[in-house]
Amino acid sequence: MQFTSDNAAAVHPAVWQAMMAADAADAPYDGDALSRALDSRFTDLLGRECAVLWVATGTAANCLALASMVPPHGAVVCHREAHIEMDEAGAPGFYLHGAKLLLADGKSAKLTPDGIAAAIDPIRNDVHQVQPHAISITQASEYGCVYRPEEVAKIAELANARGLGLHMDGARFANAVAFLGCAPGEACQGVDALSFGFVKNGGLGAEAIVFFDVEAARIIRYRRKRAGHLQSKGRFLAAQILALLEHDLWLANARAANAAAAAIASTAPSRLLHAVEANEVFLACTAAERQALRGAGFTFYDWGQDAARLVTSWDAKDEHVTALARAIAAL
Amino acid sequence: MQFTSDNAAAVHPAVWQAMMAADAADAPYDGDALSRALDSRFTDLLGRECAVLWVATGTAANCLALASMVPPHGAVVCHREAHIEMDEAGAPGFYLHGAKLLLADGKSAKLTPDGIAAAIDPIRNDVHQVQPHAISITQASEYGCVYRPEEVAKIAELANARGLGLHMDGARFANAVAFLGCAPGEACQGVDALSFGFVKNGGLGAEAIVFFDVEAARIIRYRRKRAGHLQSKGRFLAAQILALLEHDLWLANARAANAAAAAIASTAPSRLLHAVEANEVFLACTAAERQALRGAGFTFYDWGQDAARLVTSWDAKDEHVTALARAIAAL
Amino acid sequence: MQFTSDNAAAVHPAVWQAMMAADAADAPYDGDALSRALDSRFTDLLGRECAVLWVATGTAANCLALASMVPPHGAVVCHREAHIEMDEAGAPGFYLHGAKLLLADGKSAKLTPDGIAAAIDPIRNDVHQVQPHAISITQASEYGCVYRPEEVAKIAELANARGLGLHMDGARFANAVAFLGCAPGEACQGVDALSFGFVKNGGLGAEAIVFFDVEAARIIRYRRKRAGHLQSKGRFLAAQILALLEHDLWLANARAANAAAAAIASTAPSRLLHAVEANEVFLACTAAERQALRGAGFTFYDWGQDAARLVTSWDAKDEHVTALARAIAAL
Amino acid sequence: MQFTSDNAAAVHPAVWQAMMAADAADAPYDGDALSRALDSRFTDLLGRECAVLWVATGTAANCLALASMVPPHGAVVCHREAHIEMDEAGAPGFYLHGAKLLLADGKSAKLTPDGIAAAIDPIRNDVHQVQPHAISITQASEYGCVYRPEEVAKIAELANARGLGLHMDGARFANAVAFLGCAPGEACQGVDALSFGFVKNGGLGAEAIVFFDVEAARIIRYRRKRAGHLQSKGRFLAAQILALLEHDLWLANARAANAAAAAIASTAPSRLLHAVEANEVFLACTAAERQALRGAGFTFYDWGQDAARLVTSWDAKDEHVTALARAIAAL
Repeated sequence: MQFTSDNAAAVHPAVWQAMMAADAADAPYDGDALSRALDSRFTDLLGRECAVLWVATGTAANCLALASMVPPHGAVVCHREAHIEMDEAGAPGFYLHGAKLLLADGKSAKLTPDGIAAAIDPIRNDVHQVQPHAISITQASEYGCVYRPEEVAKIAELANARGLGLHMDGARFANAVAFLGCAPGEACQGVDALSFGFVKNGGLGAEAIVFFDVEAARIIRYRRKRAGHLQSKGRFLAAQILALLEHDLWLANARAANAAAAAIASTAPSRLLHAVEANEVFLACTAAERQALRGAGFTFYDWGQDAARLVTSWDAKDEHVTALARAIAAL
Repeated sequence: MQFTSDNAAAVHPAVWQAMMAADAADAPYDGDALSRALDSRFTDLLGRECAVLWVATGTAANCLALASMVPPHGAVVCHREAHIEMDEAGAPGFYLHGAKLLLADGKSAKLTPDGIAAAIDPIRNDVHQVQPHAISITQASEYGCVYRPEEVAKIAELANARGLGLHMDGARFANAVAFLGCAPGEACQGVDALSFGFVKNGGLGAEAIVFFDVEAARIIRYRRKRAGHLQSKGRFLAAQILALLEHDLWLANARAANAAAAAIASTAPSRLLHAVEANEVFLACTAAERQALRGAGFTFYDWGQDAARLVTSWDAKDEHVTALARAIAAL
Repeated sequence: MQFTSDNAAAVHPAVWQAMMAADAADAPYDGDALSRALDSRFTDLLGRECAVLWVATGTAANCLALASMVPPHGAVVCHREAHIEMDEAGAPGFYLHGAKLLLADGKSAKLTPDGIAAAIDPIRNDVHQVQPHAISITQASEYGCVYRPEEVAKIAELANARGLGLHMDGARFANAVAFLGCAPGEACQGVDALSFGFVKNGGLGAEAIVFFDVEAARIIRYRRKRAGHLQSKGRFLAAQILALLEHDLWLANARAANAAAAAIASTAPSRLLHAVEANEVFLACTAAERQALRGAGFTFYDWGQDAARLVTSWDAKDEHVTALARAIAAL
Repeated sequence: MQFTSDNAAAVHPAVWQAMMAADAADAPYDGDALSRALDSRFTDLLGRECAVLWVATGTAANCLALASMVPPHGAVVCHREAHIEMDEAGAPGFYLHGAKLLLADGKSAKLTPDGIAAAIDPIRNDVHQVQPHAISITQASEYGCVYRPEEVAKIAELANARGLGLHMDGARFANAVAFLGCAPGEACQGVDALSFGFVKNGGLGAEAIVFFDVEAARIIRYRRKRAGHLQSKGRFLAAQILALLEHDLWLANARAANAAAAAIASTAPSRLLHAVEANEVFLACTAAERQALRGAGFTFYDWGQDAARLVTSWDAKDEHVTALARAIAAL
């Protein structure tokens, strides 16, 4: 019973169907009909004009988005526990040609205007210090916590006031929107570029980089190719994304994953280290308790010495979820 | 009737089946059983110990392979018309952190020891000039011409004598092996790293980087992740590759594509600009002739002012090939 | 009798005096009075508003100038024998983060609009090919030949029409102006950034990067520091430059060097491989003849198998020049 | 009365003399007799075989030294307040092609084995996280505190055990050695590369990078040129360094600066924020007190809200030092 990662989950049947429906040769790279449909599809969905590029991974999506905002001599403000800092093998340093990540603090891996200001206010405005050029926030955060639209708005306001770009790592954007119950465009209002994740939510290998600055997208197309991320059979990536957007399948999938996490969380409210707002549960539990859970057939990651990370997927099986909830309650 | 690119062709049914068979969640990234099977599978196939990484594109494969050989202050010798020079958007400059491509000449985009020596002999051995660290050859070449094992051996000998690494861009390695009729390992004997292409040959989005230097592979795993090319559902890439290797499907596909090219070429031997040894036909023909062909329903690229490039795929339809051959003969 | 390089010549006494006059501590880096005087000094000299940064070397000057024009995914058009291509150890690849040099042809290492167009016209305007963002020309060229103002104007016109920046490597700008006899601003009219050389012309270790785009200079100040080129005792670099500009000492020095080259050239007009317009003489002569010259006490570089490069300096001694002229005449 | 920075101090007369004595043309770059003398001079001084490159700045020295140890996908452990992190404009990111700085804690900006371990132990040994490849320590530290030989030895031991390189930023190495009273080689025992500073200690614009790994130096010569730091009149940099080494002038200068700092510190022991072991005094004092000092004619930097940084130079005038000491005592 797998609660290790939504990364490893199965591909949604509708995605398989859409991919196979795209099998007949069309134009290579992103010249095909499906890839060309993305801009208007996302513009409709998000209610703001945008230009959209597919890539295979969230790391590529984040880094190409940031490359549109940050020169090699600049910096990105992000949370100390942000994925781009902790788990992307230094990809921002590669894609941004040596630009820096400035680490800020905030509860549950969410940034706040105060946390951001604390990180950047001490920077002297002189050539000896690396100057910030962008802020990156994660929706939902690395601890499965969701920025409310007004929280994003305040960060966007700060970004604007300081002349910084605003990037949203939306590897779990779907889970955040499902939680908020708002229009998708509200969950990323004020953002300049959004990494809109599909792989963790029923896709196979396709993420969307949504540029609300259309000229930025034009330039990043060169960067995508230069990074080896312009796949020649790109129609299969576009097909995945479109299939998940169709009939709001992306939201249904995210709701299913969120519901599974909520079910698990509800049995052990006192053990929760972070509010469970998306599809991740961080649970205080001892090594012995984790061993007991594993002995009962559940797989998951340890989180430090005293906690476990449980991640639910769009295809979480009810019986697995129920079993896990019971096992936790019984600890 | 599409003769534009093997890049745009359909995915082989066996590849679809293998991917769907891999749908059940396994370990993320390359920890799954399929990915872990690659090293031994290729070691068997090529008859030399190797370590293998999948990536989605040939550009990423080439650049990561070269990154194992060339420091940022070094250079790669390649043909003036090599894909890494002409069509990868400067990706080598990105992946190699500013290293240089040294352009050499040679018939039909094939390098020779003499051509390589002419490019590197004038380089003074001092710090003012960028020193070569590797040679990259393309099997089959950008003009669909195939290095004979003894030609590769001579280049490998030169590489050895000069202390240079040897990379083979095998985007169409399958077509080369099909043409040579030799063991696959013979077609890349002496090479340090091989980009073994599958996308043009029935795959969806998976290429193999074969490192004959196993320690190099260990390091490049970091580089792959750092480049955003470590897909979280990597089992689907491994599945493609393994499916194409199974029962030598890769060779059957390549033979089909080669045969289609040969059939087309045979009708107009006097128009051929390069020997047709793989799945590409470069045909002298006027603008009017090209218009005639297009009028008859064939799509392809112009190649300069006076030529056309016709590429055949693993799934080339007999009736299309026959129709094209006739149309050319009738010009 | 040294005719190897103007790089190795002595420092002009006025430069020593100015440096020692700047010895008393002032603000560090470029906050001192001398560094702050550069902008207006060069604006006066060149008749166009500009912002000026000192650096120690021509390589740093060229690369920082180009960094203001060319993104990492772009390219610079330069002559196949340009210093940035041949003799800067790949520094443009380093400073431009992997951007490419596109090599163009032209007589005596001078570019022409036709030569530039021949290099860039074949580039398809798509993401697979690296797009040019700037042109770099060398005044005087690597063969000591000088662009006439109207030649620069035509290249500037082309740059404008194509949306490219225009950089001038003026390592020997002084020699070019001395030859042209025009106002210095005329010799670089239409240029966006000029590497104005002083080291080869009586300086110790200071070159000026002249940005006619003042905002570009603001950004490059960060890049200069990031490259380790913001010296803490920058007043000594500014002092060198100001000393050489004072009373047009830079022109007097260049005239002296040019005159020496002209004197040498005049004795062997039939041997000249390039017009002698600055302080370099490229002379057809056999290995035996070179040996004879060396036997007579002259030092210089071979230039390939059949030529010698003779470079004169601001402090060329009349008797050495006369001796060399005679020795050549006597060959 | 300047206590702002040793960076801005005058050049020692012996340095001027040595530079002028080197005026006659010699070989360009580092082919001159003085540059060629450095290896053996430092080998004698430090009692270990080494190869030495000059560069103009400490930033270039640090980054080129680190470039010999850290691949683009790696990291350097340094103190959170190290110069390479705080004041070099992201130069390590540039020179190391995007490698990361891992920030560790320690009193008075000195690292300890425990502080280093705390920074690197949590790093999982997998491709998702950037792995450390080197440690960089500053001798004397950014707060003017000196590593005892046994402290360096313990860090070197840790570096060895973990397979990490060890770099010492010795911008104020002279002050550290003067404080320790030991042989210079003892103050950097176990170090792989040392940035040996001269600019803050009576030089004009020359630092030495001392590589105890001679092969590393060979490679970094290419990197130096590629960074535009190979000055053509390099003999003037070598001359500075040799002049300061002659008769241990470097130590005499450092002792003078240290003595001045000690004199200032002795008047206000209760205000000292860090032990005064080199030529920097960090003094607790209010804004009003700082204003009073400035009113009395002293210049220096604020250090946050409640402190001042006072730096003494080799040429600190006794009457200035005495005046400052009295003014502080009188606060």
